Amino acid sequence: MRPSGRAFDQMRDVTIQMGVAPQAEGSCLIGFGRTRVLCTASVETSLPPWRRGQGLGWVTAEYGMLPRATGTRTRREATAGKQSGRTQEIQRLIGRSLRAVVDMAALGENQIILDCDVLEADGGTRTAAITGAFVALSEAIGWMKARSLLKGDPIRDHVAAVSCGVYRGTPLLDLDYLEDSEAETDANFVLTGAGKFVEIQGTAEGEAFSIEELNQLIGLAHKGIGELVALQRAALEASR
Amino acid sequence: MRPSGRAFDQMRDVTIQMGVAPQAEGSCLIGFGRTRVLCTASVETSLPPWRRGQGLGWVTAEYGMLPRATGTRTRREATAGKQSGRTQEIQRLIGRSLRAVVDMAALGENQIILDCDVLEADGGTRTAAITGAFVALSEAIGWMKARSLLKGDPIRDHVAAVSCGVYRGTPLLDLDYLEDSEAETDANFVLTGAGKFVEIQGTAEGEAFSIEELNQLIGLAHKGIGELVALQRAALEASR
Amino acid sequence: MRPSGRAFDQMRDVTIQMGVAPQAEGSCLIGFGRTRVLCTASVETSLPPWRRGQGLGWVTAEYGMLPRATGTRTRREATAGKQSGRTQEIQRLIGRSLRAVVDMAALGENQIILDCDVLEADGGTRTAAITGAFVALSEAIGWMKARSLLKGDPIRDHVAAVSCGVYRGTPLLDLDYLEDSEAETDANFVLTGAGKFVEIQGTAEGEAFSIEELNQLIGLAHKGIGELVALQRAALEASR
Amino acid sequence: MRPSGRAFDQMRDVTIQMGVAPQAEGSCLIGFGRTRVLCTASVETSLPPWRRGQGLGWVTAEYGMLPRATGTRTRREATAGKQSGRTQEIQRLIGRSLRAVVDMAALGENQIILDCDVLEADGGTRTAAITGAFVALSEAIGWMKARSLLKGDPIRDHVAAVSCGVYRGTPLLDLDYLEDSEAETDANFVLTGAGKFVEIQGTAEGEAFSIEELNQLIGLAHKGIGELVALQRAALEASR
Amino acid sequence: MRPSGRAFDQMRDVTIQMGVAPQAEGSCLIGFGRTRVLCTASVETSLPPWRRGQGLGWVTAEYGMLPRATGTRTRREATAGKQSGRTQEIQRLIGRSLRAVVDMAALGENQIILDCDVLEADGGTRTAAITGAFVALSEAIGWMKARSLLKGDPIRDHVAAVSCGVYRGTPLLDLDYLEDSEAETDANFVLTGAGKFVEIQGTAEGEAFSIEELNQLIGLAHKGIGELVALQRAALEASR
Amino acid sequence: MRPSGRAFDQMRDVTIQMGVAPQAEGSCLIGFGRTRVLCTASVETSLPPWRRGQGLGWVTAEYGMLPRATGTRTRREATAGKQSGRTQEIQRLIGRSLRAVVDMAALGENQIILDCDVLEADGGTRTAAITGAFVALSEAIGWMKARSLLKGDPIRDHVAAVSCGVYRGTPLLDLDYLEDSEAETDANFVLTGAGKFVEIQGTAEGEAFSIEELNQLIGLAHKGIGELVALQRAALEASR
Repeated sequence: MRPSGRAFDQMRDVTIQMGVAPQAEGSCLIGFGRTRVLCTASVETSLPPWRRGQGLGWVTAEYGMLPRATGTRTRREATAGKQSGRTQEIQRLIGRSLRAVVDMAALGENQIILDCDVLEADGGTRTAAITGAFVALSEAIGWMKARSLLKGDPIRDHVAAVSCGVYRGTPLLDLDYLEDSEAETDANFVLTGAGKFVEIQGTAEGEAFSIEELNQLIGLAHKGIGELVALQRAALEASR
Repeated sequence: MRPSGRAFDQMRDVTIQMGVAPQAEGSCLIGFGRTRVLCTASVETSLPPWRRGQGLGWVTAEYGMLPRATGTRTRREATAGKQSGRTQEIQRLIGRSLRAVVDMAALGENQIILDCDVLEADGGTRTAAITGAFVALSEAIGWMKARSLLKGDPIRDHVAAVSCGVYRGTPLLDLDYLEDSEAETDANFVLTGAGKFVEIQGTAEGEAFSIEELNQLIGLAHKGIGELVALQRAALEASR
Repeated sequence: MRPSGRAFDQMRDVTIQMGVAPQAEGSCLIGFGRTRVLCTASVETSLPPWRRGQGLGWVTAEYGMLPRATGTRTRREATAGKQSGRTQEIQRLIGRSLRAVVDMAALGENQIILDCDVLEADGGTRTAAITGAFVALSEAIGWMKARSLLKGDPIRDHVAAVSCGVYRGTPLLDLDYLEDSEAETDANFVLTGAGKFVEIQGTAEGEAFSIEELNQLIGLAHKGIGELVALQRAALEASR
Repeated sequence: MRPSGRAFDQMRDVTIQMGVAPQAEGSCLIGFGRTRVLCTASVETSLPPWRRGQGLGWVTAEYGMLPRATGTRTRREATAGKQSGRTQEIQRLIGRSLRAVVDMAALGENQIILDCDVLEADGGTRTAAITGAFVALSEAIGWMKARSLLKGDPIRDHVAAVSCGVYRGTPLLDLDYLEDSEAETDANFVLTGAGKFVEIQGTAEGEAFSIEELNQLIGLAHKGIGELVALQRAALEASR
Repeated sequence: MRPSGRAFDQMRDVTIQMGVAPQAEGSCLIGFGRTRVLCTASVETSLPPWRRGQGLGWVTAEYGMLPRATGTRTRREATAGKQSGRTQEIQRLIGRSLRAVVDMAALGENQIILDCDVLEADGGTRTAAITGAFVALSEAIGWMKARSLLKGDPIRDHVAAVSCGVYRGTPLLDLDYLEDSEAETDANFVLTGAGKFVEIQGTAEGEAFSIEELNQLIGLAHKGIGELVALQRAALEASR
Repeated sequence: MRPSGRAFDQMRDVTIQMGVAPQAEGSCLIGFGRTRVLCTASVETSLPPWRRGQGLGWVTAEYGMLPRATGTRTRREATAGKQSGRTQEIQRLIGRSLRAVVDMAALGENQIILDCDVLEADGGTRTAAITGAFVALSEAIGWMKARSLLKGDPIRDHVAAVSCGVYRGTPLLDLDYLEDSEAETDANFVLTGAGKFVEIQGTAEGEAFSIEELNQLIGLAHKGIGELVALQRAALEASR
């Protein structure tokens, strides 16, 4: 029995609310249960210096968490004077995940910056961020299309992410904070709409895990990501 | 005629939504028109070192802005590695304003940290932050009261804030971004529920201003803050 | 009775010594009683990048305090690795105050940087800094005039500053450190030679203050700034 | 055909030289072909504050690269003033990997810090670092055992790491820099001596990868890590 | 012929003004010609953590330069966010030089911090700083003596410093900025009142220098430092 | 009797191993007894901005120490976020020492960066670094010559360095850590192959030292550096 009462292969309620940052070229507020992440996409016509003059675009991401997104207050990174190693690791993952489905030549020499800010944290913030950032990115691409700023369609496929884990010996889909903090194994999967892998990150928190457990987690991830991609599609269609 | 179409002494629609950060001891989402600020209050039982052992509490504030709260993306302060001078100035102002209405002895040796994060910026973010932070603070004080953590009632009065300015020669109440960026004079007023001054900050952006203009701005501030205090009261009562 | 023995509307002895930094284009050492601030003006022919190409100049300021300007040693900001929020707030105020009386088109694409370094602190360092910085700025403008580097006369009026406060219920002019640290209300006024407001900053340290008190402080400020402007004039004329 | 001329499932020559840092409690210089990493283990009797008083030890790691470990000079992180996101990600991975095979109760309230400094980089520095750090850690544990500083045997199993990747459509074991920079998929595996997973990180650099490819990479990793564990054993036995 | 018109073995006019920082336990303003350095000594009853509990005191120094002490404005180190390598090198030298003549046991567990801030720079700021810091230190020691805070007399001898250099082939005493910037060899000497060496730092700016040149510079240093020590004595006696 | 058992004028065994960093244009691993420093030279065709357009080259150096080069672990400077004052002082010294023997016009508009990283520290790391850096620099110059990147021969003479000190009243050559930590006087000498001075730095750690002691230290330095220059020659010739 999961603390959340969900079945082992059941996602939390996932909601995607569009138009939440009206000044951004793309945005959504994604909820994985109580976890809520505000994702915005900013289109910029200038590239980082090392990327210029190659006819290719760039997609990058930044991640943050409001101090009181958590049960006890977390120190503000702007006050601390730097981003933690965890924050940098997550934002690098978000950027890589999105770039895997973007055709940089079709994007032209433009940059899209995704900002993923966690308003409330209850486990799975990085997977919610990736899933929501794809929606914000897609909306921003639509905004560019409408202004003829593109050289083609840069979106090659959907991308979404989910965490799975082994909790008290049972593989579970979409861990919340309570489950995650006790899980023996924690894995994050980033998959395309076609079900191929963009990123897989599995970590043994206590005992090392077996190949059988890994395969069960992979199976759960495929199920969850199938559902997430359907929700992305619905949200993007509804907002057109 | 104001760009916003409002009368010279008319506030924007102000909304205060409670319960938006369920893990915090107090919180609200305050809107001054399109400007939206998420305010949370965190109760901590430890004080900063210099404040310990005096039988007095402490109230402080931090301020931040999501990168895409603005029309073009603003650089994330955590990435830049420091808070700007403007951010520090604002969060010092919020802290001072709240401390002016809190009885530190009644608070006991506890600290309340207010986090004010701007989700969308359209002028007046610091005044919205002060007004909303008071609501979050009051809710947190209520939470402490229910747990018998207080030595008395620390809230001595309401505190709220509004900006006024001289725009094309006319004194106006509650400037939005468009009005603010052209105003000749910009003033922020922090007043108590009893109509006394906690803080007044007036700046000539172009021409220096006269004492007559100052007095007109003060009159507008009194009107606006009366309305804000009524809204604070209503929000706090409805959430009890 | 004031701790200083002065009448309620009496300034400390104010002295302005010219020519104290012979390598600078303008400089003075200003004393408000025991408070002494060294102000230098540096003329630069390059502008900050965001200001270039508009035919306009720029005036900015930096503020510092020697570690032993105070009764107990204050940590050196260069060692701490950053300027405090208080320092940034003060230097932003000095810059804004001076820009309010400078015609940027007449200045041409030049920048003047004012450095205000407190050699000894006894209250009112920011108001002494503004008052002295205007003198250094004026001398530097004269230096530019003599070299035909200007497109007109950029000085539109004098600017000077003074602090007032409510101390044991009585409004006082020009608080020293002892008075300031006990004052219920502390206000800084920046006025032009014509008596108009450039900046007003009033803060209730303990009790909120009334509009009557505010008006009394404004009256004192007008008196004090009249005297400061006369002293600025005398110092500038004597040094010609 | 691999650029290196190796068979698809062939590791580079791996060497482990003991006793290279005579002042450290444990150390080795590990070579994966031309990649060379100096690993030292430092035993400290003090724990980080958050870990104290629980009767448990701690193992952590830091990673660095000499500026000229690379084909063109890389900027020194001490000069830049911070560790890059990549560095932090790697050192967090090394620490997690080692902690997975250490019994913290048996270690007692002691800390072991692993420093992994890359003297020459030719791909696979993080996997070489993990494999070598385990050897240095084991030697340091032996040093502690000889001084009766332990409450039991903290080493529960070996841990080693290897990278695999899909290069021009073919899964390969132990990528060198040339192969790695062109690989479509890059995966790092951290496994125990018993062949269970401590960490798996797979990233699609270009095209997303299929589950079949993932399974082939896993198979290669098992083979390589079997060989690495045998080399660790031999090095540790020879140095006893 | 020197640019300054001085004889090859002639110091600039040296002045030592006492009592310039009335809030400090010791202070002087020292001038080596146009070079002027404000030196203050702060007595603290707390030691740095690593020095505690040994019955010994500590003496340390910090060095700074006002932005417009120089011919063109130098960037403020507090704004830059760190002290330059040059600044750190100088302040370490000042601290070492003073510690060489202080009996740390006689000082007891107290710390004296010397702040040397350059108001105007015309070459030789570090040697002026050392010479002036000794005077401020001595005054502070006197202040401690008067309050019975000492365990004996901590001052074992005078210490003073001077720069010498080879300029167009001729060894010169006490270089000013013009001479220093063209000198082939630049050397700083820190000597005791008894004429022994505390520190010697000689650097070839262009050609390497011979042992004959070194010996000539040493001779000049002895002459100059004899004069400086006499001036220190006179200043300290006059201020008693 | 020295702790090391060496004669008063006897260097430790000095070894210079070439080719240790195959990706660098020049490199060596230099050993002064147990002290070992890896020196690499990187040729860059771009100059720092302030040096461009004058037809002159530039030589600079950076210095680091692996955390466990020392008896107890030293904090990594990249983690601390800055280089210590000691590190900056040393790397400035290395750079100055090398520049003294390089003809910048012959180097052309190229830059050579020397990285000196201490693998093991047992006293004399800065003098070993200078001596080894010269060898790496020379090899890099040879590499440039072979590619016709030079306008002449930039190497005007050898440069090498050694420390001497007064230990229990006796002047000694080439102090190791044990001797250095007890020495009354510590001096570093940087000399050319022709025996002229590039840099001399002498510091009294306890008692001030006399001119007789200084002259004895100078004599020892000449002897030691003669031997070091012969070893540099041999190493460079063997590697040709």
